[in-house]
Amino acid sequence: MATLNHHPFLSSKLHLTKAKPRPIGPTAVRMSLQETGPSLAVVGVTGAVGQEFLSVLADRDFPFRSIKMLASKRSSGRHLTFQGHDYTVEELTAESFEGVDIALFSAGGSISKEFGPIAVGKGTIVVDNSSAFRMDEKVPLVIPEVNPEAMDGIKVGIGKGALIANPNCSTIICLMAATPLHRRAKVLRMVVSTYQAASGAGAAAMEELELQTREVLEGKPPTCRIFNQQYAFNLFSHNAPVLSNGYNEEEMKLVKETRKIWNDMNVKVTATCIRVPVMRAHAESVNLQFESPLDEDTARDILKNAPGVVVIDDRASNRFPTPLEVSNKDDVAVGRIRRDVSQEGTYGLDIFVCGDQIRKGAALNAVQIAEMLL
Amino acid sequence: MATLNHHPFLSSKLHLTKAKPRPIGPTAVRMSLQETGPSLAVVGVTGAVGQEFLSVLADRDFPFRSIKMLASKRSSGRHLTFQGHDYTVEELTAESFEGVDIALFSAGGSISKEFGPIAVGKGTIVVDNSSAFRMDEKVPLVIPEVNPEAMDGIKVGIGKGALIANPNCSTIICLMAATPLHRRAKVLRMVVSTYQAASGAGAAAMEELELQTREVLEGKPPTCRIFNQQYAFNLFSHNAPVLSNGYNEEEMKLVKETRKIWNDMNVKVTATCIRVPVMRAHAESVNLQFESPLDEDTARDILKNAPGVVVIDDRASNRFPTPLEVSNKDDVAVGRIRRDVSQEGTYGLDIFVCGDQIRKGAALNAVQIAEMLL
Repeated sequence: MATLNHHPFLSSKLHLTKAKPRPIGPTAVRMSLQETGPSLAVVGVTGAVGQEFLSVLADRDFPFRSIKMLASKRSSGRHLTFQGHDYTVEELTAESFEGVDIALFSAGGSISKEFGPIAVGKGTIVVDNSSAFRMDEKVPLVIPEVNPEAMDGIKVGIGKGALIANPNCSTIICLMAATPLHRRAKVLRMVVSTYQAASGAGAAAMEELELQTREVLEGKPPTCRIFNQQYAFNLFSHNAPVLSNGYNEEEMKLVKETRKIWNDMNVKVTATCIRVPVMRAHAESVNLQFESPLDEDTARDILKNAPGVVVIDDRASNRFPTPLEVSNKDDVAVGRIRRDVSQEGTYGLDIFVCGDQIRKGAALNAVQIAEMLL
Repeated sequence: MATLNHHPFLSSKLHLTKAKPRPIGPTAVRMSLQETGPSLAVVGVTGAVGQEFLSVLADRDFPFRSIKMLASKRSSGRHLTFQGHDYTVEELTAESFEGVDIALFSAGGSISKEFGPIAVGKGTIVVDNSSAFRMDEKVPLVIPEVNPEAMDGIKVGIGKGALIANPNCSTIICLMAATPLHRRAKVLRMVVSTYQAASGAGAAAMEELELQTREVLEGKPPTCRIFNQQYAFNLFSHNAPVLSNGYNEEEMKLVKETRKIWNDMNVKVTATCIRVPVMRAHAESVNLQFESPLDEDTARDILKNAPGVVVIDDRASNRFPTPLEVSNKDDVAVGRIRRDVSQEGTYGLDIFVCGDQIRKGAALNAVQIAEMLL
């Protein structure tokens, strides 16, 4: 994939090369946890989210005494430079988790289902970015700014393994904005329409979007390997399987994960999830109905003070959140905050939210969860 | 603008060159209306919609005895080939409408405001694609499949001029799908999120999207002339001015035009309008609340039988409407038809709609109105 210099969609390499070398001992040297932090493993390290795990760990100076780079057999043996040190990608096996305190998983649901419980059996705390365990009643589903209490009692150093699930990207980005408002006025119903980036389908999908765009501009037929139709200059209903109720799995994640994260089985959510030709940040149009009155100025103030949220809501100059603006950024951006003119007798707001799918939508949220384990 | 051979976003030239020559007399020869149809004028003929007027007139074998190609002074003198005949673009003046039966306007609101009444004064029936007269109580706002009765009594040949307004593209595309359902179960509330193409901002915006995309792929900073920010691989809140209630004008068109077209001042509508990097067809995610029960199978059947609507709703193969598929097509495509899981006690459906913005969203609808005048 050619490098898009002015618009580095894939940030990982950039971050990795610019990251300052830090004085970490070799992985074989194990010092005490208090001195140098936990031992880490990154599962699926060669993928888009895996690479972003490293980027976020470096950016946040996450303390660790060792880190294992794990991937499929196909990728094993590849070399990675991280914080000035060379690492060899190792094949993920049942033995990989020996002595690992925290493992960040992003290698797909089937890998999580197979190796997550093995890791937990070795005493590892697994932060899993797949959907494998999200709806498991015994597994906390956590956005640190929203429901940190869900992982109470899970800590590195108490010698017990555990699974913690990272919510789906669309859910995280939506709830980062909706939760502060929910706390004030209680959300009764949300109608969400998404504008989802290529990155949600992995690095190969981002490459396909770029390749297709070049092909279409050259008058060639677009190469369709990841998706079964043209993506360049087009959009389509999210590629997740469609269920018997007509919703696709991506949409039902928003419906079900919201209920679990808010611990509110009565909140009503509907979603329409659409893939748009944008590289790595999702946007969401969110219509909210509240139990209590909440005017738009109060909502804006609440959001301005919400952790991990930035308000971009300049009506005079028509400046609102865009995917490009939040790409490679930690904060979720919210704008278009306005009273819903279609609600009378109920209390409603419309908002528009953008967040980096790879970062807060995946890797950052997982690393924040890991930080809470320390 | 380079030609995108495999994906001719701008269809006009294609249509014009492939259109079969028809035996029409020179514009100076005026025969009886009954024999050869009305005399036409196209105002703004060099724009994206103006070009599409010609394309649609040719495709539909619209009868006429003469046609005037009108544009600004800047474009006058240019030559056009239409149905095998050469035409010279004439400068729009107050005298342009002498003897013209029907004028199709798409040259912006200020041109319509200035020249629309002049044309009407000459006995011309003006079909206006701008927003200038849409909310004027005396002017019918018409989608032929939806509210043909609004233009009862307006006919070519009765010697009187009149204004008829073409609704905004987003409204037309939304109501083509929503109206058949509204007739059955009465829509109480609609929540609309749009995915709007470059074409809505004109041919120059389409060229800018293409240029920017090339630039970004080459690592160059994108040229921003039409929009004040990067459009390639990005999306942003619609560029229409934002009003004091926080909605932009594009959104309020959906709110107000729906009420007028349905002649229902109580229907509740909210909209969030977003510009996506797609060339010429809009998509809309529409959440509907009905007064009466309407199950998804009945809704699908109703839509299958609705004129100007095609249902693409294949859950098993995840095939639903896309902007690319409806580009250069007349029909509005509807899919993702499903019962809204967030509505209990009310009757709700979610649908996803795509329609060609230049064609049914503008030129085709106007030509259909003109057909009803004959």
